[in-house]
Amino acid sequence: HGHFSGSILQIQFADQKQEFNKRPSKIGRRSLSRSISQSSTDSYSSGKRTQAHFSASYTDSSDDETSPRDKQQKNSKGNGDFCIKNIKQADFGRREIEIAEQEMPALMALRKRAQGEKPLAGAKVVGCTHITAQTAVLMETLSALGAQCRWAACNIYSTQNEVAAALAEGGFSVFAWKGESEDDFWWCIDRCVNVEGWQPNMILDDGGDLTHWIYKKYPNMFKKIKGIVEESVTGVHRLYQLSKAGKLCVPAMNVNDSVTKQKFDNLYCCRESILDGLKRTTDVMFGGKQVVVCGYGEVGKGCCAALKAMGSIVYVTEIDPICALQACMDGFRLVKLNEVIRQVDIVITCTGNKNVVVREYLDRMKNGCIVCNMGHSNTEIDVASLRTPELTWERVRSQVDHVIWPDGKRIVLLAEGRLLNLSCSTVPTFVLSITATTQALALIELYNAPEGRYKQDVYLLPKKMDEYVASLHLPTFDAHLTELTDEQAKYLGLNKNGPFKPNYYR
Amino acid sequence: HGHFSGSILQIQFADQKQEFNKRPSKIGRRSLSRSISQSSTDSYSSGKRTQAHFSASYTDSSDDETSPRDKQQKNSKGNGDFCIKNIKQADFGRREIEIAEQEMPALMALRKRAQGEKPLAGAKVVGCTHITAQTAVLMETLSALGAQCRWAACNIYSTQNEVAAALAEGGFSVFAWKGESEDDFWWCIDRCVNVEGWQPNMILDDGGDLTHWIYKKYPNMFKKIKGIVEESVTGVHRLYQLSKAGKLCVPAMNVNDSVTKQKFDNLYCCRESILDGLKRTTDVMFGGKQVVVCGYGEVGKGCCAALKAMGSIVYVTEIDPICALQACMDGFRLVKLNEVIRQVDIVITCTGNKNVVVREYLDRMKNGCIVCNMGHSNTEIDVASLRTPELTWERVRSQVDHVIWPDGKRIVLLAEGRLLNLSCSTVPTFVLSITATTQALALIELYNAPEGRYKQDVYLLPKKMDEYVASLHLPTFDAHLTELTDEQAKYLGLNKNGPFKPNYYR
Amino acid sequence: HGHFSGSILQIQFADQKQEFNKRPSKIGRRSLSRSISQSSTDSYSSGKRTQAHFSASYTDSSDDETSPRDKQQKNSKGNGDFCIKNIKQADFGRREIEIAEQEMPALMALRKRAQGEKPLAGAKVVGCTHITAQTAVLMETLSALGAQCRWAACNIYSTQNEVAAALAEGGFSVFAWKGESEDDFWWCIDRCVNVEGWQPNMILDDGGDLTHWIYKKYPNMFKKIKGIVEESVTGVHRLYQLSKAGKLCVPAMNVNDSVTKQKFDNLYCCRESILDGLKRTTDVMFGGKQVVVCGYGEVGKGCCAALKAMGSIVYVTEIDPICALQACMDGFRLVKLNEVIRQVDIVITCTGNKNVVVREYLDRMKNGCIVCNMGHSNTEIDVASLRTPELTWERVRSQVDHVIWPDGKRIVLLAEGRLLNLSCSTVPTFVLSITATTQALALIELYNAPEGRYKQDVYLLPKKMDEYVASLHLPTFDAHLTELTDEQAKYLGLNKNGPFKPNYYR
Amino acid sequence: HGHFSGSILQIQFADQKQEFNKRPSKIGRRSLSRSISQSSTDSYSSGKRTQAHFSASYTDSSDDETSPRDKQQKNSKGNGDFCIKNIKQADFGRREIEIAEQEMPALMALRKRAQGEKPLAGAKVVGCTHITAQTAVLMETLSALGAQCRWAACNIYSTQNEVAAALAEGGFSVFAWKGESEDDFWWCIDRCVNVEGWQPNMILDDGGDLTHWIYKKYPNMFKKIKGIVEESVTGVHRLYQLSKAGKLCVPAMNVNDSVTKQKFDNLYCCRESILDGLKRTTDVMFGGKQVVVCGYGEVGKGCCAALKAMGSIVYVTEIDPICALQACMDGFRLVKLNEVIRQVDIVITCTGNKNVVVREYLDRMKNGCIVCNMGHSNTEIDVASLRTPELTWERVRSQVDHVIWPDGKRIVLLAEGRLLNLSCSTVPTFVLSITATTQALALIELYNAPEGRYKQDVYLLPKKMDEYVASLHLPTFDAHLTELTDEQAKYLGLNKNGPFKPNYYR
Repeated sequence: HGHFSGSILQIQFADQKQEFNKRPSKIGRRSLSRSISQSSTDSYSSGKRTQAHFSASYTDSSDDETSPRDKQQKNSKGNGDFCIKNIKQADFGRREIEIAEQEMPALMALRKRAQGEKPLAGAKVVGCTHITAQTAVLMETLSALGAQCRWAACNIYSTQNEVAAALAEGGFSVFAWKGESEDDFWWCIDRCVNVEGWQPNMILDDGGDLTHWIYKKYPNMFKKIKGIVEESVTGVHRLYQLSKAGKLCVPAMNVNDSVTKQKFDNLYCCRESILDGLKRTTDVMFGGKQVVVCGYGEVGKGCCAALKAMGSIVYVTEIDPICALQACMDGFRLVKLNEVIRQVDIVITCTGNKNVVVREYLDRMKNGCIVCNMGHSNTEIDVASLRTPELTWERVRSQVDHVIWPDGKRIVLLAEGRLLNLSCSTVPTFVLSITATTQALALIELYNAPEGRYKQDVYLLPKKMDEYVASLHLPTFDAHLTELTDEQAKYLGLNKNGPFKPNYYR
Repeated sequence: HGHFSGSILQIQFADQKQEFNKRPSKIGRRSLSRSISQSSTDSYSSGKRTQAHFSASYTDSSDDETSPRDKQQKNSKGNGDFCIKNIKQADFGRREIEIAEQEMPALMALRKRAQGEKPLAGAKVVGCTHITAQTAVLMETLSALGAQCRWAACNIYSTQNEVAAALAEGGFSVFAWKGESEDDFWWCIDRCVNVEGWQPNMILDDGGDLTHWIYKKYPNMFKKIKGIVEESVTGVHRLYQLSKAGKLCVPAMNVNDSVTKQKFDNLYCCRESILDGLKRTTDVMFGGKQVVVCGYGEVGKGCCAALKAMGSIVYVTEIDPICALQACMDGFRLVKLNEVIRQVDIVITCTGNKNVVVREYLDRMKNGCIVCNMGHSNTEIDVASLRTPELTWERVRSQVDHVIWPDGKRIVLLAEGRLLNLSCSTVPTFVLSITATTQALALIELYNAPEGRYKQDVYLLPKKMDEYVASLHLPTFDAHLTELTDEQAKYLGLNKNGPFKPNYYR
Repeated sequence: HGHFSGSILQIQFADQKQEFNKRPSKIGRRSLSRSISQSSTDSYSSGKRTQAHFSASYTDSSDDETSPRDKQQKNSKGNGDFCIKNIKQADFGRREIEIAEQEMPALMALRKRAQGEKPLAGAKVVGCTHITAQTAVLMETLSALGAQCRWAACNIYSTQNEVAAALAEGGFSVFAWKGESEDDFWWCIDRCVNVEGWQPNMILDDGGDLTHWIYKKYPNMFKKIKGIVEESVTGVHRLYQLSKAGKLCVPAMNVNDSVTKQKFDNLYCCRESILDGLKRTTDVMFGGKQVVVCGYGEVGKGCCAALKAMGSIVYVTEIDPICALQACMDGFRLVKLNEVIRQVDIVITCTGNKNVVVREYLDRMKNGCIVCNMGHSNTEIDVASLRTPELTWERVRSQVDHVIWPDGKRIVLLAEGRLLNLSCSTVPTFVLSITATTQALALIELYNAPEGRYKQDVYLLPKKMDEYVASLHLPTFDAHLTELTDEQAKYLGLNKNGPFKPNYYR
Repeated sequence: HGHFSGSILQIQFADQKQEFNKRPSKIGRRSLSRSISQSSTDSYSSGKRTQAHFSASYTDSSDDETSPRDKQQKNSKGNGDFCIKNIKQADFGRREIEIAEQEMPALMALRKRAQGEKPLAGAKVVGCTHITAQTAVLMETLSALGAQCRWAACNIYSTQNEVAAALAEGGFSVFAWKGESEDDFWWCIDRCVNVEGWQPNMILDDGGDLTHWIYKKYPNMFKKIKGIVEESVTGVHRLYQLSKAGKLCVPAMNVNDSVTKQKFDNLYCCRESILDGLKRTTDVMFGGKQVVVCGYGEVGKGCCAALKAMGSIVYVTEIDPICALQACMDGFRLVKLNEVIRQVDIVITCTGNKNVVVREYLDRMKNGCIVCNMGHSNTEIDVASLRTPELTWERVRSQVDHVIWPDGKRIVLLAEGRLLNLSCSTVPTFVLSITATTQALALIELYNAPEGRYKQDVYLLPKKMDEYVASLHLPTFDAHLTELTDEQAKYLGLNKNGPFKPNYYR
């Protein structure tokens, strides 16, 4: 496996920089550090953050510089099998979790249904995700369903310390804090899996690092592991590569491509977050602005719809003729970037591609043009090309840089080209609820699947479970589903309980 | 084959009445005849119909009641291998075809590219579709690509006689006229296939009747047939049944489910035709009207978007939780029909299901409520339940009936529950262009595919060809596609020429 | 008054050709006649036209070419004080009126309230409007309110003969038929006012011809006339000219500029009729089409909103910077016509101005470009400039001409540049209901106003009555108005019953 | 005048609490103070705030508690005729002003045009407005046009200290700082007007306090004053009261009701700020949410359009039947608040009225319901009724309170019922540019108007100037206005340079 990690994954790391730069290069880390010191809103976690939270956080940084790894902490029951910033923040964290629970009705419904049966009884889940109030609701749901959990953070900056405290206080073995070093990061993961008398049989991963670590350090563990549930584009990509290389040794569930997640995270969520991210950073007025959106996939569709609705004039670029034709029919001029680059007020990338906005285009933008990225990676805008001596960078707000040309022209670059929606807006809890519910169901499915249903491959969530996730979220909207009559079900050749659509339907 | 047609297909006919009632029962035929005598706009063919056309048609009916089968006609070159209404209408038909050509740029582009190579050289295509100006452009394109064609109509009412005349004048063996009897219908199909010295090697079908006829009468013909291209929901359904029963003996291409067709015929086309169909029939003002749309698939999405944009208040019913959640996120109240049936002004079915609007709901609608069907079949509204003695039917316009309750309440029923968009609005040539181009490419693909690429199964159009169809239509919108750089293609792991998306992407 | 009609009005006729060309020049009449013979849908009247209606109409033209002026007809009660096409059509007309009543709830409500008091008792109203089912509902309402009515048509083509018959049968003195000559036109008007033993004390006019006739022939009649209610732009313009010239000798109510009428007739109604008119004439697909809308007043706003919603890409031209800025904020590129004329698929004029689309622009349009007019006059498109020898006109459908350039380029001209929404779509009864209700209230107000409230001037409808008209239409939408509490009314300084806004509020 | 201020104005103060609580009651002030200490984003000023700005502000509060009134400061030229926080912040402020200049092209254009003539030469303007970067651009424009200016703040919290410093450094006599006491507030105003050897001849006021002060203390000053330009609803209301009472002794220009300001500040600006304000405070997802908007004036129209576009289901309440009918036609269910109060997720008030959302409704809202105010005053929500012992208030974020019922139900109250768009979102500079340009033009008009054009009354801005303001902002959108030909202007009876619409046109 050493060979493996030395080839596939390292190449991948070089090529496909991950959004959160867990293991940032020197330059990467420097810029991230700066952004942290500059902004308390520079956060991808969502939900209500209370005043208390901010106070607590403030307290942290001012009076306690000791590394969590050097502290001895115990929760009120005397349990010390965790490593977090400060167990005293547990009360603050509990409140955050309670607020999140209100907007995650599907998980709460799962808990209720689990009062009788425990579909995860015996499950030992090791997880590696962002540690936020929403994740806490998921973890406590898994626990209510019968699972034991050990958890690390998938990102060195994203942990809500007070939530981690609340989890530790509640008896969860959590190893995470905000501002881990790279060494801390792997240490925490290792503490989750390398524990006497406890061996995971399920993996819940977000980004693939936990999976990677086990492959690299404890490959034998896979013998007892029933499956991997992976959340992220990057992690899924890694799994497909493993599968292709014949090295995937347990079934894996690709949660990322489930319909509900795709539509919610991309189309519906971006429809809102593009407006939110632009407003919070620039206060720009949308009405009458000329905008070019690069890419008309789900993300681009969401961005375009929102901006059009707010009175912007939107141009679209595309490489795929089908999406291009959709853009046309939806009322957007389909152009090449160079046709409009001189006239637009805002440039938004949503391609998942690299070097979509290169220096040549940046040179030709007009004064005041706003440039930002809503796509899957931070490579869409060639930000590196702007770090040249003749250009001056001026940080005017958190997440907002003016890049100034010798003639005085300013480009407004947001989040240094990283994801605008993660950096500069918040993700509604409701969307996270869909993802978390999907993760929980995927765990249940893999854990309970009869021998042979899943092989050593990567699977999409069965349509029926996708539909179940959706149905659990309908009560939020007071939405009333119609049921097929027996006669209708027979006519359509469908089971009355679904699945209702072919797998390819989106 | 007798056994075959006696089981599978007959069951199907009983269950799934086709929209166009090719073989209408007595009641069905009576109502269709009536609608023909009452309305010159009661047509599913689209495009520009000139004054000349109407004059010609008028002349037909008044001075020539002879059956085409009893006439001897020859075109100007002395060829008489066709059977149509009146060869003298060829000039009128040619003009219709020329007008259609202007809006079918993709087929015209295919013709140009075919000047060098003839991808259908040697192909002998037998076709059974609506015979309209748009079909003529397709047939003449197939001919330009090297194919020989013989053609019949897939519907007894839909033939544009003057177009058939122009095709016959142009040397095509066409067997079709408007107002065929059922016997005529099968006779025409038979004349296409049962011909000395010519045997088809490709089938282009719309509805499956041609395919059915060959299965039944000339099963040996399949030995030389390279494939079937099928256009309709019904025909595709039949093919899947054949395939499931192990009786499909050549590859078949399911054109109906190609992405471009689905999105255009359903989402984009219905977005426009729902407004058009309602206006032409009822002149209703949309602003402020309360509407319930049953079904939130592509058709429902199109209807809802259009009506919302026009100021209607739209409610949605759904059985599928995913579509239901989409409806919620798109801003529609998800209800059961009985919750709103008393208050709505318009009821629209888009489910593909049967008995969605039953008598119980019709009884509870308010006075003046408009009821219509945009779904896949004419079974969504239980129209039969309205043909009872206590209710009075009053035909107030072509395609518009008032059904009157004893207390004076009137329901406005459109197209007797048949498809509103086919009965009461027109389909833009541009949409038909997409379908026709897809059919042409499917024929080319099946005809030229190397041995073994396609087995005796039903196939979706390869993604790449779907993308090609789309790309041929972009110039209409002066849309400029962006090309991947080599570096970008490599980064994405894509071929620069596509396909760009996984097959399941919609 | 001879002098008067010889100067002001004649100049006006030369300059401001009226939409309906009541007194068409030779060319005008020829084209109108043609359009009548070509199309039964070429009608500006709205509402449901039954099959019976069409049958009846057909009967008319085939078996009865006698001029109504030469016929002796009596209704079933022996009354013969009317002149219409055929009293036998009364039953058909009655049904039309009943259907219209269902969509004119406000007038029906006025009738109910009038059961006790008769606010028009003693009123003798002479009217000159389009004679349609909707007008009939108005006339019968005026009658129920206590008025006596005599009526002529304001347009030689717009009379629904069967409605006129129903009115005559009901005892109204109606003088109108479809297809009057110019001489008939004035004869009918004269028969309304020049009658022994009856002298009007109220005028309800649409276009100003009735008013003009009385000014010219019976100026003394104004001594007893309490006021004029005028509906049309043209008529109002004439009244303001009279007032400016000091020649207006009774109060006049400008119904045309009331808020409800403006918003409904223009913004909301055009939002729907632009789509309807384009579809019925050309079947054009809106999605992806490039459209330029000239003028961003209420009509232009409605057109732009609808087309944008249907997926068109819309450009706007404007002369007024405020409307221009609104267009920008609403998301439309503000251009000069010459910037986009080569690329657009559709050109729509909504300016109320003349020569907006001149030959120079027509020469530069691309092949297939559709040109139509939604503005206030038929002068916006310089159609005359297209009647030159090098261009060929081809009538392809009713209301649709192809104008063909020597190089084969075709422009699709709709309604010969006359109003698209009147020529090619229908006006919903609901909109006509608002206008008719406003007319009724204006008559009541002028008839009952205390001495001195209105002088010899042109008045806008008092805000409060505008609000009352609106309130009478809310039940149609099951809309529930909130009432101010006493405390709130005091806080706002408003009467609890309105008016709620300043007069200038729109 | 003592009598005057003792009656009219004091009553007004009691009844119509101003948004900014310049003279807050004890409770009011306490809450405001709290909000300041809690949030750096709790600001109504807009535009880009740089990091430098925040640093500077931080420095202020920590190291300098001396009252500005007790400091002796001079600018670099030795001028000390000002009173501000800290002249050393001038450079920071200058940068803010420069950034604002980029988005206020109209004022910059005015400066350019004024290079030849100085339309305000001799004008001595005393101003009382928010002191922000945008105001600075206005003041420096007035100066470039020839005016002398002295300025105070119209709000004790809104002054951007560094901007005030830049103005003082630039030679302006500014008397303002952030966090004035009420005594400071009046002292600053007095220092502007009560100065030896300088007497104002023009007043630019926002809220009417400056005008009030001069009326009360220096009524004789009005002899030399040529006019008042007033910006705010409140100030305009006061002026109309004065006028009605016969006490207005100079002409006043009501800038608030100019078309551009109304449409921009209300319709277009609120369309964006409702989304921004809700997101920044609650991160709520709009899709699928049920919202009730109270009031369908311009503000309500903007809010409804935005929320509908984002996928919310919007209900509207109205008192005015015309606005109610507009809501219906725009596709919103018109309800009474009590019909939907139990089911909605968000309640937004836009009425300008008081006690629209009273305790009774608050009691019936569901758990988690968000309540906020976008109207003209802070009285729309009866917040006082929530300050009772049985309810618990919990501040969860800046501007966000949870009000908790005994049963645990939480209402999310934003900005304590004050204006959401001022408290929780920013106003785009572009909108402020329109207002500032209008103010400048109003000053020019009043200052240069020939004797007798304006009497001692309150005037709306002449339509033509409104149009001029709009035209100055079109270049921002690269918008190209069409010019009338001579022939067209004659036809329309318009001057080619406008005004193009009647005064009442909106």
